[in-house]
Amino acid sequence: MAETIKYLLDESRIPKAWYNIMADLPSPPPPVLHPGTMKPVGPDDLAPLFPLSLIMQEVTAEREVEIPEPVREIYKLWRPSPLYRARRLERALDTPARIYYKYEGVSPAGSHKPNTAVAQAYYNREAGIKRITTETGAGQWGSALAFAGTLFGIDVQVFMVRVSYDQKPYRRALMETYGARCVPSPSNETQSGRAILARNEKHPGSLGIAISEAVEVAASRDDTKYALGSVLNHVLLHQTVIGQEAMAQLELANDYPDVIIGCTGGGSNFAGIVFPFLGAQLRGGRKVRIVAIEPAACPSLTRGKYAYDFGDTAHLTPHAKMYTLGSTFTPPGFHAGGLRYHGMAPLVSHIKELGLIEARAYHQIKCFEAGVEFARAEGILPAPEANHAVRAAIDEALKCKEEGVSRAILFNLCGHGHFDMQAYIDYFAGKLSDQDYDEAELAMALSGLPSVKAA
Amino acid sequence: MAETIKYLLDESRIPKAWYNIMADLPSPPPPVLHPGTMKPVGPDDLAPLFPLSLIMQEVTAEREVEIPEPVREIYKLWRPSPLYRARRLERALDTPARIYYKYEGVSPAGSHKPNTAVAQAYYNREAGIKRITTETGAGQWGSALAFAGTLFGIDVQVFMVRVSYDQKPYRRALMETYGARCVPSPSNETQSGRAILARNEKHPGSLGIAISEAVEVAASRDDTKYALGSVLNHVLLHQTVIGQEAMAQLELANDYPDVIIGCTGGGSNFAGIVFPFLGAQLRGGRKVRIVAIEPAACPSLTRGKYAYDFGDTAHLTPHAKMYTLGSTFTPPGFHAGGLRYHGMAPLVSHIKELGLIEARAYHQIKCFEAGVEFARAEGILPAPEANHAVRAAIDEALKCKEEGVSRAILFNLCGHGHFDMQAYIDYFAGKLSDQDYDEAELAMALSGLPSVKAA
Repeated sequence: MAETIKYLLDESRIPKAWYNIMADLPSPPPPVLHPGTMKPVGPDDLAPLFPLSLIMQEVTAEREVEIPEPVREIYKLWRPSPLYRARRLERALDTPARIYYKYEGVSPAGSHKPNTAVAQAYYNREAGIKRITTETGAGQWGSALAFAGTLFGIDVQVFMVRVSYDQKPYRRALMETYGARCVPSPSNETQSGRAILARNEKHPGSLGIAISEAVEVAASRDDTKYALGSVLNHVLLHQTVIGQEAMAQLELANDYPDVIIGCTGGGSNFAGIVFPFLGAQLRGGRKVRIVAIEPAACPSLTRGKYAYDFGDTAHLTPHAKMYTLGSTFTPPGFHAGGLRYHGMAPLVSHIKELGLIEARAYHQIKCFEAGVEFARAEGILPAPEANHAVRAAIDEALKCKEEGVSRAILFNLCGHGHFDMQAYIDYFAGKLSDQDYDEAELAMALSGLPSVKAA
Repeated sequence: MAETIKYLLDESRIPKAWYNIMADLPSPPPPVLHPGTMKPVGPDDLAPLFPLSLIMQEVTAEREVEIPEPVREIYKLWRPSPLYRARRLERALDTPARIYYKYEGVSPAGSHKPNTAVAQAYYNREAGIKRITTETGAGQWGSALAFAGTLFGIDVQVFMVRVSYDQKPYRRALMETYGARCVPSPSNETQSGRAILARNEKHPGSLGIAISEAVEVAASRDDTKYALGSVLNHVLLHQTVIGQEAMAQLELANDYPDVIIGCTGGGSNFAGIVFPFLGAQLRGGRKVRIVAIEPAACPSLTRGKYAYDFGDTAHLTPHAKMYTLGSTFTPPGFHAGGLRYHGMAPLVSHIKELGLIEARAYHQIKCFEAGVEFARAEGILPAPEANHAVRAAIDEALKCKEEGVSRAILFNLCGHGHFDMQAYIDYFAGKLSDQDYDEAELAMALSGLPSVKAA
C-alpha cells in the first residue's frame, strides 16, 4: 500500500449547498428566547446585529441552503481541502485501525473558520454593510474574518481580549496585514468598555467584554453588523462543507467511518464534520459513533447543565438552551484558546440531549503529547484545539489494537499550530499544567443561570 | 471569468524525474576546486560530508534524474502544489497583465525547502546514515530538514545561529516538535565552536560559524553526514519539481510566461521554477525573460564579483566560482533571512554570466508594501523572501498597464510568512530600514577573495 494516501476532489466537487441538520432531526431544538419577554426571538430582534439572510439561515428548516457562487469562488482558494489516510501514524501506533483526517489548516487563515467568515462577509456585503465588528480571544476567528473582509471589501473591526492582544502580537499582525483594525478590549471606543476601564484601567479583558463591545458598536450603527465565529446555527451550517467533502472523499476510499471525532469549543468544527454523516444516519443510513472532545478545564458537554443561558458574560444576548457552565464561569488557563467557551452550540447541545453523540473531556498535556506524536508521524503540526481530536483518534486506534479489530476513525484536523508555538514551547519545557476548573466556581456560575435564578 | 483560478494537477503528475539543466547548457559551469591543491574536487573529497548518490547528482550531465518512489510518496503530502492566476491582484492593479504564482507554502514546513530536504534525507537513509547535521539562520531550512528527518527516521542536529536561536524561539520549537535537536551556535559541541566561545562566551554566532560546526560534526563521524539547503547543484536539481509542475499547469491555462521571477538568496527556489523553462528555451523552445530578485542589502548578482570563493566564512569548504560579495561580507540587518548569503549558486551564477537571466536588487520596505498588497488581494501572507518576487511581479504588471500590453508573468511564492510576523509588525510600525551595505565593507570582503589574494 502507498505511503501517502491523500484523497483529493476536483474543485467542481466543492459542495453547492450547505447541509442543514434541522431538516432531519426527530425534534427541533428549543427556541432562543428574548431575555426581556422570555418569548422566542424573531427576526426583528436580531436585525440590528445580522443581515436578514443570515437570520433566515438561523431558523430555516430547509435541508439544503444554496452556497452563493461568490462564496464558492473564494472557497476555491483552498477547497476542497484534503482528506488523508494517516498511514504513518497507523504504523507508528502499530494499529489495525484505519485513521482518516480532514485537514482544514490549508485555508489561508490556517483553520476551518474561513468557511463561515467568507459566507458571513458575503451576505453582509450583499446587504450593503460597510463594516463588521467581532471579538476574538486567541485570534483564529478574528484573522479568518479579517481575511474574508479584505476579499469582499468590508472593513473589519476586531475587539481582541487585551491580555491576548498584548501576549499574541503575531495573530494581531496577521489581522492587520489583512487590513482589519484590531482594538484591545476593554477599549475607550464603547460605553461598556469605558465603564470597565473607569473601574480598572488595566483590566485584562475577557471574551464576554469583547462581545459586548463588538455588539454595542454594531447595534449603534446602520452600516455596521456583528459576526460570530461559532455557536449559532448559521455558523454551524456553513461548516458542513467539511463533512460533505469528507463523505465524498471516503467514497473514493471505499470506506465509511465507524467513529467520527471532533474537538468542541463553541461546536462549529465538530458540527462541520459530523452533521452530514449524522444526517445520513437519521435518514436511515449507516449508524456511526460520534465523539465530541472538550478540554477538561472547560467541560460544558460533560459537566455543564442543559439549560437556558446567556451567550455572553455581559448579558446582552438572547437566552439559548445549551449545555453551559454558566456565563460567569472562568476556566483556568490552558492553551486551546478556541475551546474556552462557557456554553455549547444549541444544535450540538440538542443532539447530545437526544443521545446521538458522546462527549469526553481531556486534559491538555496528553493532548500535546498526541499532537507531537502526530507531527512526527504525519509532518503536520496541529493547533492546540485540534490536538484534542488527535488524542481521541489515537486512543481509539489503540483500542482497536487491544481488541484486534480494524475500525475506520475519522477526525477533523481543524487547524495548524503555526501561531501557537508558545504552547509547544511550554509543553516541551514541562510548564503546562492540567489544572482543573474550580468546583466552587462552577457551582457559583451554575447558580447564576437565568432559569435557576427565576425558580 | 471566474474569480479564483487555481490550476491543480493530479498527484500522478508529480514529476517522475528532476530536470538537470547541465544537459542543455552551451557550456558547463567551471569546476569546484579543492582549496589545497586548486584541482577539481573528486567524489572522495566530498565523501565525508555527503552520501555518494548526492555527490553523483552534483556532477551528473544526465538530463533527467529519476525521483525515487519513497521521495515521491512524501511529496504527495503537499504536491503538486497549486498554481494560481492572481485575478484579484490583477484587478486591484487594474493591469492587463496575466499574473500567475506557484505557491510552495503549502508544504508542512511552509516553504519550498522540503523538496530537497526530503530527497537528501532519503539518500542519506539509503546510505545507512543515522544522523544529519546542518546549519540554519532564520530557521526555514532547519525546519524543512527536521520534517524530512522525522519521516525517514533520521536524527537531525541543527546548529542555529545563536542570535536567531534566542530571537526566533518559534522556528526552533517547530524543529523540536519534529524531533530535531537544535543547538545554539557557537556551541561547546565542536572544536570550532569552543575556540570562538573561548574568545567571547557571548558571541552572537553567524551562518559561517554554524556551517563550520555542522561540517565538523559530520566529518568526524561515520554515521553522520551534512546537508545544505541551497547553492549546490543537487539542491537546485531537487527544486526543479516546481518549474516542471508550473509548466504543466500553464499548459492547462493555455498560456506561457513572457517573464519568470524568483527571489534569490542561495538560488534554489529561483532555479526550481526557472530551470525547466530555461531548458526548454535552450533546446529551441520559446524564449522567456528571466529575472532574479535579490535584496539590495546583500546583492551578490548585481554587485558581487564572478570569482572563485569559499562557501563559508570559516573556509572549510571547496572553492566554487560564483557571484560573491566575499565570504567575510556581513550584510546589514534585514528581514529576509533566507536571502542573507554572500554568494550565489554556481549554476545560477553561470547562467547569469552566459547572459541568460537578468538580476535586480530591491530594498526591503517596498517589498513588504507589495507583500501586504498581495495578502489583501489574494488572501495569502508571503514570507519576507517571497515579497521580493511579489514586488517584481507587481512592477512588471504595472509596466504592462503603462504600455497597454498583456504579458504573462509567472513568479514563485516560495513560502508563507507565518513564522515571520515580527517583520510585518516592524513594517507597520515604520521600524524597517532600507540600510545599504557598507561600500568599504564590500571592498574589504572582495579584496579577501582567494583569487585576489593569489594574484
